[in-house]
Amino acid sequence: MSDSEQSSGESGSYVEAGGFERDTNYIETRITADGRDGFPVEAGRYRLVVARACPWANRAIIVRRLLGLEDALSMGICGPTHDKRSWTFDLDPGGVDPVLQIPRLQDAFFARDPNYSRGITVPAVVEISTGKVVTNDYPQMTLDFSTEWTQYHREGAPDLYPEPLRDEIDDVAEKIFHDVNNGVYKCGFAGSQDAYEEAYDALFARLDWLSDRLENQRFLVGDTITEADVRLFTTLARFDPVYHGHFKCNRSKLSEMPVLWAYARDLFQTPGFGDTTDFVHIKSHYYEVHTDINPTGIVPKGPDVSSWLSPHGREALGGRPFGDGTPPGEPKESERVPADHWA
Amino acid sequence: MSDSEQSSGESGSYVEAGGFERDTNYIETRITADGRDGFPVEAGRYRLVVARACPWANRAIIVRRLLGLEDALSMGICGPTHDKRSWTFDLDPGGVDPVLQIPRLQDAFFARDPNYSRGITVPAVVEISTGKVVTNDYPQMTLDFSTEWTQYHREGAPDLYPEPLRDEIDDVAEKIFHDVNNGVYKCGFAGSQDAYEEAYDALFARLDWLSDRLENQRFLVGDTITEADVRLFTTLARFDPVYHGHFKCNRSKLSEMPVLWAYARDLFQTPGFGDTTDFVHIKSHYYEVHTDINPTGIVPKGPDVSSWLSPHGREALGGRPFGDGTPPGEPKESERVPADHWA
Repeated sequence: MSDSEQSSGESGSYVEAGGFERDTNYIETRITADGRDGFPVEAGRYRLVVARACPWANRAIIVRRLLGLEDALSMGICGPTHDKRSWTFDLDPGGVDPVLQIPRLQDAFFARDPNYSRGITVPAVVEISTGKVVTNDYPQMTLDFSTEWTQYHREGAPDLYPEPLRDEIDDVAEKIFHDVNNGVYKCGFAGSQDAYEEAYDALFARLDWLSDRLENQRFLVGDTITEADVRLFTTLARFDPVYHGHFKCNRSKLSEMPVLWAYARDLFQTPGFGDTTDFVHIKSHYYEVHTDINPTGIVPKGPDVSSWLSPHGREALGGRPFGDGTPPGEPKESERVPADHWA
Repeated sequence: MSDSEQSSGESGSYVEAGGFERDTNYIETRITADGRDGFPVEAGRYRLVVARACPWANRAIIVRRLLGLEDALSMGICGPTHDKRSWTFDLDPGGVDPVLQIPRLQDAFFARDPNYSRGITVPAVVEISTGKVVTNDYPQMTLDFSTEWTQYHREGAPDLYPEPLRDEIDDVAEKIFHDVNNGVYKCGFAGSQDAYEEAYDALFARLDWLSDRLENQRFLVGDTITEADVRLFTTLARFDPVYHGHFKCNRSKLSEMPVLWAYARDLFQTPGFGDTTDFVHIKSHYYEVHTDINPTGIVPKGPDVSSWLSPHGREALGGRPFGDGTPPGEPKESERVPADHWA
């Protein structure tokens, strides 16, 4: 998603009491195995556009890699900063996505709808031949990767959304969305002290609830990694580098919440999680784009993130990270996060 | 001092490379035992004006209390926030200091010099009969409390500036001033990424140096509390509530630096230190006054500061906090920090 738009009312807006409300109107066309929306799952037909900085896009990056969809669904990567209107392909040679041949993600949204007026958000899936965005509905997107793209899953791909656990995953994910994923934004973009404090209380109450849940259980639902863990992880990864200071989520750092910190390190050290996390892009994005709350644009030098690689001890709780499957192999060379982006 | 003025150039200004430079031109008239500047030490003649939020004023509050100068030198307390020009007595009934009978500290500066154009800063000592500021030279002020006001020291007052240790105290205090006391401001008000990073590096290098120095030594110089400890303490007390997030001093929290954190708690739990620290005023001041770096004015709810009262274990290092003296008694009722300002 495009974080900067919250205050301009494109992806979110302030309501009268000063609370932040996220615009959840996305392009809901689905890419499915049966192609019922006109967009069947097909290798090489679509391109996933992301920004590593964005937590909502990070979900899609992780799930694509865990499932081994890299060869079926290519990925375009926007830079960490963007202007008021659009994410851009400024990391690519010539500032143009090599497949879509566009400089700005908004070009794909306008190709879909010349009058498109909502947020230009990542993640978005674009049909390569037409250059049109098919969907930017990120909560549905990763579920469809799991359940509709099955014919292209790698051998040993985990089941991130197992049928018998879907109700529980949905329930936990819903709580995480409101209080944590979006909760940090409600803190950071609150328009009043009261709205901020309400969001802060809900956030830390939920983190305490999650900590209790995870104290004797390695993953959030069942004994394997699921969609719920992916959704929690992307917010936890940004907590100390960004949300703690920039969004004033400062009751404590993640690193001061022992259960959640060990849980987050466990995932970080699992292929697909840490290796898709880019702390340099993350800090650059929030601190440079949100000039409404960080007018100087100066990016904090801390914290030290090397401790993400320290032992977590969570293996003692058992659990089978990939269930009956296996971890993914190394990331593709072209999709690697530079090693110095962890330092 | 008046923190807000840094960006308006009154107490400080940006230099071309983007660094923050503190205006160190104060009114240097001294109140001395021999009265050589026309202002002899005398009980009841002067009033110390402070704001609990301000680290430079906090020094004077601590030293006055450690030495037991309360009855000889009364104290007026400004509220935590101030407008562009002046600290105000907004906490007092009618918004007027009950002794000086003025609403704004600037009135005392203009009484001294109608054309006064520099910062209206705390701490300031005002001559009650004339209503004129005598001095706002804070580094000299606390030394004069120790060495010139001796006839009014309480029985058992510590020697905070012992003759044989003065060179060492001055040397350590100078390093602390540049890299730590003022260093945090250089981080927070840096006008460029480079200037920020330079200040950040100097700050944490100095904190590491101080941590090494304090690892096996209870206090900074000698085996008793001195002026050097007072000067370091007031910055450490503000570190996690303000400087870590607001000024981007975020390599680590104070609470993540074990030696300095224990040292700070040791002092905090010593009469005169914690009981003059007001976390509510501190957070309110920085976050509400500095609209240039916190435009929303929203004050973070965290961190939890109750851990300041946890055991520190520093007694094991020996040391004699008050040397041959004794701790001060309870604060005067009228000068107590409300207990809920620690929560």
